[in-house]
Order: sequence, then C-alpha cells, then structure tokens
Amino acid sequence: MAEENYDSRKIDGRSLSKKVEEQVKQGVDKLKAEKGVIPGLATILVGEDPASKMYVRLKHKACERVGIHAEDHNMPESTTQEELMLRIQELNARKDIHGILLQLPLPEHLDDKSAMLAIDPAKDADGFHPYNMGKLLIGDEGLVPCTPKGVIRALEEYNVEIQGKHAVIVGHSNVVGKPMAAMLINRNATVSVCHVFTDDLTKFTLDADILVVGTGVMHLIKADMVKEGAVIFDVGITEKEGKVYGDVDFDNVVKKASLITPVPGGVGPMTIAILMEHVLMSASNC
Amino acid sequence: MAEENYDSRKIDGRSLSKKVEEQVKQGVDKLKAEKGVIPGLATILVGEDPASKMYVRLKHKACERVGIHAEDHNMPESTTQEELMLRIQELNARKDIHGILLQLPLPEHLDDKSAMLAIDPAKDADGFHPYNMGKLLIGDEGLVPCTPKGVIRALEEYNVEIQGKHAVIVGHSNVVGKPMAAMLINRNATVSVCHVFTDDLTKFTLDADILVVGTGVMHLIKADMVKEGAVIFDVGITEKEGKVYGDVDFDNVVKKASLITPVPGGVGPMTIAILMEHVLMSASNC
Repeated sequence: MAEENYDSRKIDGRSLSKKVEEQVKQGVDKLKAEKGVIPGLATILVGEDPASKMYVRLKHKACERVGIHAEDHNMPESTTQEELMLRIQELNARKDIHGILLQLPLPEHLDDKSAMLAIDPAKDADGFHPYNMGKLLIGDEGLVPCTPKGVIRALEEYNVEIQGKHAVIVGHSNVVGKPMAAMLINRNATVSVCHVFTDDLTKFTLDADILVVGTGVMHLIKADMVKEGAVIFDVGITEKEGKVYGDVDFDNVVKKASLITPVPGGVGPMTIAILMEHVLMSASNC
Repeated sequence: MAEENYDSRKIDGRSLSKKVEEQVKQGVDKLKAEKGVIPGLATILVGEDPASKMYVRLKHKACERVGIHAEDHNMPESTTQEELMLRIQELNARKDIHGILLQLPLPEHLDDKSAMLAIDPAKDADGFHPYNMGKLLIGDEGLVPCTPKGVIRALEEYNVEIQGKHAVIVGHSNVVGKPMAAMLINRNATVSVCHVFTDDLTKFTLDADILVVGTGVMHLIKADMVKEGAVIFDVGITEKEGKVYGDVDFDNVVKKASLITPVPGGVGPMTIAILMEHVLMSASNC
C-alpha cells in the first residue's frame, strides 16, 4: 500500500491548532471591540532552565499570533518563596492580567504546591488548581488541564464518537492521565486507567477504541498492542540525540489505527492553542 | 456446603464502623482534654422529606455516640436561597462548628450547587466541594466523599491489596463512582469506570479483582458476571415493599466472591463513621 493511505490517518495537530487559534483571535478581536478588554497572560518562570524557557517562548509567540497581551516574569533562580508568592498576589490583583501560568518545574528550594494554590482559580490558565480540577471531576468543566482538553477538541473535530466507547489511558499523572480520565468519563466513555503498576497492559490497550498514552516511555505502545481501527493520542515526549520520540511506535502503529497523532506535531500544538482559549475565556468572564 | 462458609466472606460494615467510631471517640476525648475543643457538626435540612430526616437522624445519633456536638438546622420548605446562603455563612463563621453538612436533595426552588460552593471547604464534612474533589483528584486527599472513603477503609481493614489490581466501578456519579475512581487510581489500581452507556458490562465486571457497584439498579450484578475470588462492594440501595435491596444479587454472588458487602449493613454504616472522622479531622486542624 502507498504511504498516502496512512497520511490520511494522521491527526494534524498543527492545522487543528491553527483553526483553534483563528477562533481565539476572532474572540479576542470581538472582546476588544465590544468591551475594550485586551486579554492578558502572565507567565512566571523561575531560573534559566532551557527547556522551560523554550516552552514559555512558544506560549508568548502564540499570544502574539492571537492578539493576547503577554508578560514574561522571569525571576532569578535565587527567588524566595515569599517573593514568588508576592508576585502571584500582584498578578492576581491586576485587572489587565486574566491568565497566570507558573512554568514548572520550579527550582528545588521552592514549593510548587503552595505557589499553585495561591493562583486565583479564575486566572488559572493551566487548569491545575484543585478548585478547577474538582469542578472538572464533577462534570462542571471550566479551566481544565490543556493537554487532555486538546485531545477532547481533536476528538470533536474529527467527529470521533466518545459515548459508550472504551477509552484506555496509559499513565496516571495529574497533568494528563487523571484529568483525561475525568473528561472522558464526563462524556460517557467507558474509561480504563492503566499505568506502570498495571499487570497486563496489552489486555487493556488491545481493547481500546480510544487510546491516550502519556508515560514518557519511548515507543511503549507497539502495533501488536492496539486494536484495528483505534483512535490514538500520543502525549509522550522523549528526546534522544536531538530527535523527539513519542510513547507510540508511530510508523508501525499507524498501519492499524484509524486516527493517530504524530510526535511532534500532534498533541503539543493543541495544548498551546487551548491555553490561548483559556486566557480568552477568563478575560471574557471578568 | 454449609452457609457458615459464606458468612466469613461478608464484609461486616456494622462492626467495622464501630471500630472506626471507637477511634473517633478516642480522638474526640483527646482533643477535648488537650485543647478544650469539642468538635461540632451542623446539619442543614430544608423541608420535611422523611428519608432525608432519617439520614440526618442517623448522623446525629452517631455524633452522640462519639461525643461530637451536633446541631440540627431544619429549615422550612419555604426557605429562600438567600436565607440558606446566610445560614451557611453563619455556620462558616462559627468557631464551634467544624463540619457543615447540607442534606440533599434540596427543594426544587433552591440551587444546590451554589449552596454547596458556599460551604467553607475546611468544614465540608461531606467532601463534595470542588476544592476538596480537586485535591482528591491530584492525590492530596483530605475531606473526600464519605462512601468511597468507607470502601477504601474496608479494603485496608480486610488487608486487600489494591496496587496493580483491576478495580471496576459501575456507576459514574459525583458522589460515588468518580471519587471512588480517583481514590483507587491514587492507590495504583488499574481502574475501569463503567456505567449505563457501557456496551458490554459483563466483560468488565468479569475481569474485576475489586468491584464497586453504585447504580441504584436492583440486583444488576449476577453471579455469572463476577470473577471467582472478587472483592465486591455494593453501594446501591433500592427500597421495595418495605425491604431494601442492593445492586448485587448477594445470595448468589456471595458464592463466588472472596469478600462482599451486604445491603443493608455494609457500606452504609461505614459512610457515617467516615463522616464522624471528617468532623474530628476538621476540628483537629482548626
């Protein structure tokens, strides 16, 4: 068979994210015109970690594209907890800032949990605050973690039925696995959550209509572990010798999947587009 | 085989709850002696629904047994939203009240969501506030829904291994199914959440090492749907002609289960004992 056949199975995260960003841009323009409000995102980065700096840069670039005001609060590595908390409180109080994003990981001497708790839940662009996580769990989804929300958006855009389907999630992190499970349960999928302690992972993945993998284990999911026709989201990223790999052995698994995200160019761009959507949402609600 | 063999498979919720209450009583006595603090629970019941009144009465009786001060705020059916919110705010402000329990359902003209949101999360004895639900989801369990917590306590008391086991939950309610899933995921079970939209329920229940059923469908789970040796929790209650039935066909399923809760006398008493534990916890933290 020709490669082209497989190309049509690829979930194109880049073009999907462009579509979402275009919608956000329209919303931003409308908000400016009707209420004179310019949505504002403040990112807080403590230290000089190169990967974190790159992520922050990508988010600022997206803000530029959609017309969101972005501020880069790059605080020195030596920042104290008190200084960090004070900065968060200042940003909470500012009327021109609608989203606050604390780039993780923080340097080891800082407590990320209390810092994240200090962010006003209404400005919690990442959706990690317990209040927002709890609303998610009880089915009242507002600001929710961006990566799983991006998966939901992709399912919607590709008209994949969720209700009654068996969705299998591999990885039970707070950032992906657990909120992903909550979102799929809220949409009436039958949801199984697997992880490193799961006895027979293949038994579950083989039965998955929708498979979401976020473990950070390079090429964990092989072709013989997935069902013919499955819809597969690869949230993992491993860097090796300057190349990035996902958790799914894409080249072989694509032959069985009906839809599948590549790495890179799959879930990543969607995550940032959803972040933009969140800032607009917070600015619209204020 | 003699009936006695099956008796030893029964999870005795009544004696378990006595054990938990005894521990709470000791904690209450200690708190009184060391800090002069008497834990206090305020229940709010709007209207005269007989079932709700019975539930409230059971909770007050438990308070009496363990030495917790209990107040019965029985408000008339005609109570306005404003009056209800005001009462919650008064109770939030009172130093001698450490737990507030809003008995559901409320009369139709009242908004239960905003009322529950108004309860101080630190006094949220039922564990239903989004802030507490979110902490649960991210693995920082404090005040959590009492019924699934009772299931976890029973698993611990009966030394049932959770990590790596396949836990299947039938029912995806906010009160039982979803928080139960979060608690079991936090303890590294492989967790499947099934419900009315699940295609082939038996496929899941047959594979369950731990099965928690909370649907309100009388005798939904039959013997041919469970695995030999499964540990089964029946959270359902159906009243019919003066008798109560669970979601599990106990008399037949007990022949295959290694452990199983009866209805009544299983999960119910545990729920109330956990509620007592919550009030003590909140009083100790204040």
